[in-house]
Amino acid sequence: MTVYNFSAGPAMLPAAVMQRAHEEFLDWRELGVSVMEISHRSKPFIAVAEQAEADLRELLSIPDNYQVLFLQGGARGQYAGLPLNLLADADSMAYVKTGIWSQLAITEAKRFGEVNVVADAESTGFTTIPDPAEWGDFSQAAYLHYVDNETVHGVEFDYVPQSGEVPLIADMSSNILSRPVDVKQFGVIYAGAQKNIGMSGITVVIVRDDLLKRQANPLTPSVLNYAEQAKKQSMLNTPPTYAWYMAGLVFQWLKSQGGVQGIARQNQAKADLLYQTIDNDSFYVNNIEPRYRSTMNVIFTLAGSALESEFLREAEQAGLMGLKGHRSLGGVRASIYNAMPLAGVQALVDFMQDFAKRNG
Amino acid sequence: MTVYNFSAGPAMLPAAVMQRAHEEFLDWRELGVSVMEISHRSKPFIAVAEQAEADLRELLSIPDNYQVLFLQGGARGQYAGLPLNLLADADSMAYVKTGIWSQLAITEAKRFGEVNVVADAESTGFTTIPDPAEWGDFSQAAYLHYVDNETVHGVEFDYVPQSGEVPLIADMSSNILSRPVDVKQFGVIYAGAQKNIGMSGITVVIVRDDLLKRQANPLTPSVLNYAEQAKKQSMLNTPPTYAWYMAGLVFQWLKSQGGVQGIARQNQAKADLLYQTIDNDSFYVNNIEPRYRSTMNVIFTLAGSALESEFLREAEQAGLMGLKGHRSLGGVRASIYNAMPLAGVQALVDFMQDFAKRNG
Repeated sequence: MTVYNFSAGPAMLPAAVMQRAHEEFLDWRELGVSVMEISHRSKPFIAVAEQAEADLRELLSIPDNYQVLFLQGGARGQYAGLPLNLLADADSMAYVKTGIWSQLAITEAKRFGEVNVVADAESTGFTTIPDPAEWGDFSQAAYLHYVDNETVHGVEFDYVPQSGEVPLIADMSSNILSRPVDVKQFGVIYAGAQKNIGMSGITVVIVRDDLLKRQANPLTPSVLNYAEQAKKQSMLNTPPTYAWYMAGLVFQWLKSQGGVQGIARQNQAKADLLYQTIDNDSFYVNNIEPRYRSTMNVIFTLAGSALESEFLREAEQAGLMGLKGHRSLGGVRASIYNAMPLAGVQALVDFMQDFAKRNG
Repeated sequence: MTVYNFSAGPAMLPAAVMQRAHEEFLDWRELGVSVMEISHRSKPFIAVAEQAEADLRELLSIPDNYQVLFLQGGARGQYAGLPLNLLADADSMAYVKTGIWSQLAITEAKRFGEVNVVADAESTGFTTIPDPAEWGDFSQAAYLHYVDNETVHGVEFDYVPQSGEVPLIADMSSNILSRPVDVKQFGVIYAGAQKNIGMSGITVVIVRDDLLKRQANPLTPSVLNYAEQAKKQSMLNTPPTYAWYMAGLVFQWLKSQGGVQGIARQNQAKADLLYQTIDNDSFYVNNIEPRYRSTMNVIFTLAGSALESEFLREAEQAGLMGLKGHRSLGGVRASIYNAMPLAGVQALVDFMQDFAKRNG
């Protein structure tokens, strides 16, 4: 049976990447050892690290005045890393709240200084994104932070907020590399790896050079200090070498898929197919305002919610795994990141239609 | 050609562990996916995490009043994590300086409060460990910190310092699980994984319960907060799941080797063989005071140091890789952690004797 893995993260990786990693697991580049067994300061590993960065720069057209860091601690680590590195002597930080992840970012940031929540979608049940025309003033903030795609609530920005002179910071953990992005509109883009980059345990931080000049809080752990890590090519301490290597394989695979333009077309086709299936049958419900529906995490409930656990049980038996919604929200969630093939979404859609017919 | 990998870290892993990981890389427990592709909150992964902790507890006889955390950021992350979590309202922290790693720990700690270096071996070139009878007073310190094995200088404690009521903290990154240790003498034992635990990207922190009650600095990033991570079984955020899984495989392998008692005998035999070879031929030099010679990192120079690069070149050709000394010190360093078989040390010794004969 073909298994399709809809886990929200750690998520499935491209089959070709897993195959390649498996083939060279024990004997990498004929060194007689695994890539995970060599020094991060050895020439072969440095080549891996540099190639991964070069490929990521190419994929996202990252301008030269941005540093690309490969750190540890996940996006959650950056929820502290951002205020520690960037608050400096500003009075406050501005955050947009569009779901659980932005809420967690806000909670963490509050320990470092005043947080100004300039927009809050909670009253809508996080089914939309507040109109920027109504956002509060953030002109004096150290930065403006938002979460580009909320994995739990299935809400995604379909535009880049305009922040003027204030550095714009985006948590793109769950949609980085899923579509083109104009990096130069951002001060920082960051992402945990375990959705679209690779295995968990590595975090990409793309940061504009001028922000490295801000005086980090003296209590910033060195491992989270952007300027110090940038100076050392992210090797201030031993990096998660295997996770870095896997990220590099994923970047190469993405290039073979036509880059972010190519994968964006596939992602749109996958999301369209799934949302159409939901909208065409009152048996399934998704309440997100259509333009903000996530292309990465498609959430839905069953009109007869009593059937939910049966739906999940049968799906699992049919080889459709990881569909249980986040524990805070329930329901069903299909995470369809870059690595999920259209065939997987088609299998899910077929199952949904059959299940509705039998139970509707 | 058999390759023996003497890298200081990331280091070689046990052949049996690599074999097992390779076998189940693509299809883990017949789930049809890799262990790195499933949710950290799924039952199968939680079972992996719990088994790894149980095995580590068994291997080190960790008492029930200690928490075992699996974090990110390496030992270097803990150099900040320790003061952030444990300084509380004490006036100072006490550190013993026996090499580069204790120096780095001191440098990082200084940003958080007053550091009292109670013993310093630098004037000896870090070839010995200062007599505890001559250590400065640390009775008022928040804790007493030392590095149990210095990987760069090849110096290792052969006893546990007595710290009375002051919590004793040891960085055991490079010798954890290499021999029995009486955990209850410590407040915290911590270790980056990439020597004796597994692949880089995961850090074990063993912390006594009463220390979790100290008020962490409010600027502690949540991901580094011991109490918060303990409350969430180290899953406050997405952990490095594959590194955790690999650590679990290593723990199981260690149990098959007779646990830490069994591996300690092997380690002693390996170190004895190598140091005897050095001492028996004036061609090789190791200046460490014999009782403090590391069983994990054996450093030496060649009497004719002009021959060093030739030695390293020929060793590499003979399948003996990763022998170059740390960039700060030069010379040769053979890291012979748990995973290095006696046969590897024998091969190195044979090569050394032959090289000396041809060049001595």
